[in-house]
Amino acid sequence: MRSDLDDLAVRIRAAARVVATASTAHKNAALIAAAVGLEANADAILTANRLDVQAATAGGSTAAVIDRLTLNRAKISGMAAGLRDVAQLDDPVSIVTRGFRRPNGLNIRQVRVPLGVVGIIYENRPNVTSDAFGLCLKSGNAAYLRGSSGAINSNLAIVAVLREALQTADLPADSVILFDDITREGAVAFMQQRGVIDCLIPRGGRSLIESILANATVPYVIDGDGNCHVYVDAAADLAMAIAIVVNAKTHRTSVCNAAESLLVHSSIAATFLPMAAAAMPGVELVGDDRAVAILGSRCQPATEEDFATEFLDSKMSVAVVDDLDSAIDHIRRYSTGHSEAIVTNDLAAANRFTTEVDAAAVLVNASTRFVDGGEFGFGAEIGISTQKLHARGPMGLVELTTQKYIVEGNGQIRS
Amino acid sequence: MRSDLDDLAVRIRAAARVVATASTAHKNAALIAAAVGLEANADAILTANRLDVQAATAGGSTAAVIDRLTLNRAKISGMAAGLRDVAQLDDPVSIVTRGFRRPNGLNIRQVRVPLGVVGIIYENRPNVTSDAFGLCLKSGNAAYLRGSSGAINSNLAIVAVLREALQTADLPADSVILFDDITREGAVAFMQQRGVIDCLIPRGGRSLIESILANATVPYVIDGDGNCHVYVDAAADLAMAIAIVVNAKTHRTSVCNAAESLLVHSSIAATFLPMAAAAMPGVELVGDDRAVAILGSRCQPATEEDFATEFLDSKMSVAVVDDLDSAIDHIRRYSTGHSEAIVTNDLAAANRFTTEVDAAAVLVNASTRFVDGGEFGFGAEIGISTQKLHARGPMGLVELTTQKYIVEGNGQIRS
Repeated sequence: MRSDLDDLAVRIRAAARVVATASTAHKNAALIAAAVGLEANADAILTANRLDVQAATAGGSTAAVIDRLTLNRAKISGMAAGLRDVAQLDDPVSIVTRGFRRPNGLNIRQVRVPLGVVGIIYENRPNVTSDAFGLCLKSGNAAYLRGSSGAINSNLAIVAVLREALQTADLPADSVILFDDITREGAVAFMQQRGVIDCLIPRGGRSLIESILANATVPYVIDGDGNCHVYVDAAADLAMAIAIVVNAKTHRTSVCNAAESLLVHSSIAATFLPMAAAAMPGVELVGDDRAVAILGSRCQPATEEDFATEFLDSKMSVAVVDDLDSAIDHIRRYSTGHSEAIVTNDLAAANRFTTEVDAAAVLVNASTRFVDGGEFGFGAEIGISTQKLHARGPMGLVELTTQKYIVEGNGQIRS
Repeated sequence: MRSDLDDLAVRIRAAARVVATASTAHKNAALIAAAVGLEANADAILTANRLDVQAATAGGSTAAVIDRLTLNRAKISGMAAGLRDVAQLDDPVSIVTRGFRRPNGLNIRQVRVPLGVVGIIYENRPNVTSDAFGLCLKSGNAAYLRGSSGAINSNLAIVAVLREALQTADLPADSVILFDDITREGAVAFMQQRGVIDCLIPRGGRSLIESILANATVPYVIDGDGNCHVYVDAAADLAMAIAIVVNAKTHRTSVCNAAESLLVHSSIAATFLPMAAAAMPGVELVGDDRAVAILGSRCQPATEEDFATEFLDSKMSVAVVDDLDSAIDHIRRYSTGHSEAIVTNDLAAANRFTTEVDAAAVLVNASTRFVDGGEFGFGAEIGISTQKLHARGPMGLVELTTQKYIVEGNGQIRS
């Protein structure tokens, strides 16, 4: 396999050099051509997808996995629409973010430039193939993709369309390459291409993240777990709090910005918790002693692990806290640093919460579900970073760039 | 040793929470107290330093190593002055870098916040102990230090002063901790404290960097090699080019922004190379066939490895190139992505060079030696990043922060 990877490495880096300086017009032309191509080749893509779905069904995959894997005409139109949307976004390349003249006459400016080769390792959703391609291309990067074994036929069919679209726009087909070794060893070799991949972004669950942490030698940005809390303060508007908790927990349970844990100030717990439990009849509650004392059989005792778990399901942990400090301490202990919310009308409490809670996003009187590139107005997102370096929170086109200093003089030397 | 590290981890993280929200006034007071303390305790620091210097001498260390290790009153005053300078710099914490209102009424802003715990692994220079402390504290971070075995007595004496200064300013002494296990295993354990160290910054040579790449599990920013090139274009002012090449190569040979390789356009090589060789009489030249043909015995044949080597010495590789493309190709092949310069009066050549060369800094008609936090006006630097993620180029206080989104609503839920 290494020889294949060596060949791909040469090709993807050569393409990256070209797309790095491609004009916005060329990149947009390729995005539009890709959108047209996906719709024109929907039959071929669906035929390939059927093979993957049949294999998944025969292999006993869960309904959720098969749902994520299955394409139809509407989903393909959605992928095409996504590419058209990215074509509308501002090109982040060559933006000057800072510039100044030094006393010695040197003119220094800091300019956004593409990262180069962006690697994406992802799981079963074939739409990630075109979404990642679009964001990488618009930001001037070559997209080096490694999808899952279960979606290999779908991904190959989609990438074939994308590569043809690049060529019609006079850009190298190798600006998107799918690594088709679908073994586990292939995934590890992929994430060890130091000097080839400038930034690796995993899109998947905990086992993928753990594999990256254990094996990757290339730089990466982790799109990690979201064990998100909503803290309902003593000074909360209870009706607002109910609406936010219900939305954060139940609007979509399988996503990283869904709430997993509810913290309630002890002064309102006896009133609020029964209201919350009644408003989320389908949600299994597990809680600390005081929550169980209030909710009775509606709430089973929570284990330590429950409080640390991102359920991604209709299940929520509940704790009663005596004050804001206790709420912040609880979050500090169990948070994965994704999104944390307070519901309060107390300005001082809101300010302390946003200052002291260490997370990619902290929210006051709003659902955690808003922490999302689309909801933030970025147009699209490649993921949500839960790390502190490079990017933190929703990652759009800007986060797929780095910066370069350009220093212009007229013969300056250092004395 | 693990139990010690576990104890240190609890202490440094507790301190990090306090300094993260400390006022600028408190942080500056601690910096000034530390500066005063270093000068007041110079005798004790010099006594401790003498032990390190004696051990290094007995152990047969080179003169360069002993020079870097040895402190005197002037160097201690320099460390104190450095802390006073950092006190004068703007506090990067709580700066709002972006803010906007969404159509649904959510107010979103992105705010600079400290990274948390910044780990620094460094080699023999004891002044890094106070420099790193100062930059970390001003940016609201706890400084978790691991110096070399050779400087352990000096470092312990300096850290004792810094810790006392923190307490006089009502900040936790544990805002700076020196990990005193000076074994190799200790270094590896230090760089594997995932969840404790938010960002690790190595300050040292290639073997340290390789150990980080092989062993670290914490996020890091690499301050790597500088195999920096100066390309003298056909349209260069030759007198300017000589001045820049000589400055970039000889001003200080042991630093990462020194030039290591000279590329000369073939149309001027026969004129320029003899001038350059004569202007750098102490510099050993190794070159490609054409350079050797022009310079004769003044220039020995260069190996492939010579072109890839950061000499950090009075030695320079030389190549003659036929055009700008060849110069850019050569740089692409051998560059470490630090600083790359062109000397030219041709605007198109300058623009192509700054656009197509992929490095932290690209310079036109200026010495590579300017790529430095102080020269850029950042006041101080913790290092120069040669990676693309998080920070690229000189890293000052801003690069020791991350960002946090603060989202404020009045009950918004996602529909």
